[in-house]
Amino acid sequence: MKMDERYEQAMLYDFYGELLTEHQKEIYELFVLDDYSLGEIAQEKGISRQGVHDLIKRCNKTLEGYEEKLHLVQKFLSVKEKVHRIDELLLTSETSPEDPAIAKIRKIADEIIEEL
Amino acid sequence: MKMDERYEQAMLYDFYGELLTEHQKEIYELFVLDDYSLGEIAQEKGISRQGVHDLIKRCNKTLEGYEEKLHLVQKFLSVKEKVHRIDELLLTSETSPEDPAIAKIRKIADEIIEEL
Repeated sequence: MKMDERYEQAMLYDFYGELLTEHQKEIYELFVLDDYSLGEIAQEKGISRQGVHDLIKRCNKTLEGYEEKLHLVQKFLSVKEKVHRIDELLLTSETSPEDPAIAKIRKIADEIIEEL
Repeated sequence: MKMDERYEQAMLYDFYGELLTEHQKEIYELFVLDDYSLGEIAQEKGISRQGVHDLIKRCNKTLEGYEEKLHLVQKFLSVKEKVHRIDELLLTSETSPEDPAIAKIRKIADEIIEEL
């Protein structure tokens, strides 16, 4: 699997994963977050490799469906990118780094990035 | 209905409304966004007042269920509040308002607030 596909799946899971069933979550996490192969998951969970494959495909479709409707991952990425730009601009501005307001702003910007 | 309840419903609808059915959306919008009464909606849509009442109650439960699982409204509000604080700190900092970096930061902060 391509890395960017895995990354996208992990991000979709991070946002919408709680809308999957417990069973789906268990298996999807093994695959997307813990990097197990289909065969390993099949063995671990006592289901067929095809069954694991179908379940993961169904989860992908479900999560992508939520994003198509809500666009929240897209929105969050856009905000995150903007906050990064603020952070960079603060470093390049002519202001004194001792200005307490600027220090506070950098702290808040870091908090936002961590939160998103 | 209390104003803050209506506001909360509108916000939940803004985030998760696309997960309701078309029929639910039509009626929920009339009630929450356009401020129609139950009786007015019943008349307009040719269904009973009780039917409208039940549908709206069900929509509230559905939308609240999504927020309980995903907490995305809560997350967005927290980020929005932090960006407002950045904006305020920029106004109170000792930096020269002519510093082009500061002007850019304020512009980006405004963009984020608009986006959220």
